[in-house]
Amino acid sequence: MHFLKKFKKVLRETNSHLVIGLDPDLRKLPKFFKEIKNEHPYSAFNRIIVEATKDIVAGYKLNIAFYEEQGNAGWDVISETLKQIPKDLIRIADAKRGDIENTSELYAKTFFETYDFDAITVHPYMGEDSVRPFLRFKNKFVFLLLLTSNFGSKDFQFLKITNKPLWKHVAEKAMDWNNEKIGFVVGAGHHRELKQITSELPETPLLIPGIGAQKNSLEKLLSSLNHKLWIINQSRSIIYSDYHVKSEKEFKEKVRENAMFTNSEIQKALQ
Amino acid sequence: MHFLKKFKKVLRETNSHLVIGLDPDLRKLPKFFKEIKNEHPYSAFNRIIVEATKDIVAGYKLNIAFYEEQGNAGWDVISETLKQIPKDLIRIADAKRGDIENTSELYAKTFFETYDFDAITVHPYMGEDSVRPFLRFKNKFVFLLLLTSNFGSKDFQFLKITNKPLWKHVAEKAMDWNNEKIGFVVGAGHHRELKQITSELPETPLLIPGIGAQKNSLEKLLSSLNHKLWIINQSRSIIYSDYHVKSEKEFKEKVRENAMFTNSEIQKALQ
Repeated sequence: MHFLKKFKKVLRETNSHLVIGLDPDLRKLPKFFKEIKNEHPYSAFNRIIVEATKDIVAGYKLNIAFYEEQGNAGWDVISETLKQIPKDLIRIADAKRGDIENTSELYAKTFFETYDFDAITVHPYMGEDSVRPFLRFKNKFVFLLLLTSNFGSKDFQFLKITNKPLWKHVAEKAMDWNNEKIGFVVGAGHHRELKQITSELPETPLLIPGIGAQKNSLEKLLSSLNHKLWIINQSRSIIYSDYHVKSEKEFKEKVRENAMFTNSEIQKALQ
Repeated sequence: MHFLKKFKKVLRETNSHLVIGLDPDLRKLPKFFKEIKNEHPYSAFNRIIVEATKDIVAGYKLNIAFYEEQGNAGWDVISETLKQIPKDLIRIADAKRGDIENTSELYAKTFFETYDFDAITVHPYMGEDSVRPFLRFKNKFVFLLLLTSNFGSKDFQFLKITNKPLWKHVAEKAMDWNNEKIGFVVGAGHHRELKQITSELPETPLLIPGIGAQKNSLEKLLSSLNHKLWIINQSRSIIYSDYHVKSEKEFKEKVRENAMFTNSEIQKALQ
């Protein structure tokens, strides 16, 4: 199924715009995870989060840095975790890659074939041929970095080029390259720009980080969105809300509660 | 030793500006590599290249995509290969990473601690806080993408912002962030820009791809360089020059010959 179709379907069927960021970090895992036998603590952590939420979220985003840092074990956790996620949900590799064509090709192969992600985040700086290999895969999708959620987004992304900021040039070129297989990462704090993007590109999916731990207002965000094709990634505020939970059961309940809370906050703000 | 000091020392002592790109690709490896026992073909390939050239090159650059694509085995090859490279040579992780601060931190840890690379290539698009974590590591270095060697470099890098192209804004900001721990990736075909950069930044190391398989003229390149702090990465033309070599010995001779040829071409052009 074409990613766009899958994306719309999952938003409709789950009635959720929430994507949970699976960013396992040993220092933040509740203690009992370190005592689990026969399973990497990250695998257990991700598995329980998925079990707790798979019927109430649109998908999951794996920040690859957190796995890569664990060496081989980390890559095994990625495989294990992907097995847990139902195929009809969205599975995003937040890898932020981008290189010359023969190299991007390999990254695409890794994340779309070896690991069966639906979508990947990609840097635009190197231009069209650095993105193209990701677009050759059937039913796969690219979330191109457009306006990031960090402070450094001010450094280059807003520079004005013949009265248009860099990010608009990126958006326009990318839509020329392929407007069915490219969406954008736009940080939740960029309200004015989100308004513009969602008006001008009513069929372009957005992946929105910056809500939750990065503390932007959900209400303000939602009032800026002029289409419905977006997912909000939330990670720390859902998966690390309580370091002191004592058991798998308690952790599961907590995570589910957090996800449901975010869902209902989104629904409230939408009305 | 501070990277800049090491960099100057290695250029002086090896009398070479050549960095070999270790980009192992199963489809291009001479057949006998697939029959080697007890060693991953990529480990064997890299080991022999390093043995053949470690006394005549400035260092090695590992394009991480080629390893990542192999899954766990690939990461083991990285470890094995780093063990082969003498510590006084330059070891670059061509990873092209760049993410929000807590994530870049993990990438930095992976490539500078878990794997003991001296330097890493980084995307500038996300700005200062996405690069900063890499700068916190003692004696480590960032090659920031400035002007890449691919065709897509035309898409954004040359966009003019108040009469200055984007890449110049990137260069100036980066030098403000840290002018002792940041150098630039500049493709060999950008002669005019290389002339400017090497005049204006006489103490800033450059990593130059695009010679060899990417077919830019070495002579034209060298006549554009106004300082000596550069390394040229060459990969395919050195490591894949002959698919039909039959043995380790033959392969070793071929690779050494190619590296010596490039070295002497550089020396000739320098005079």
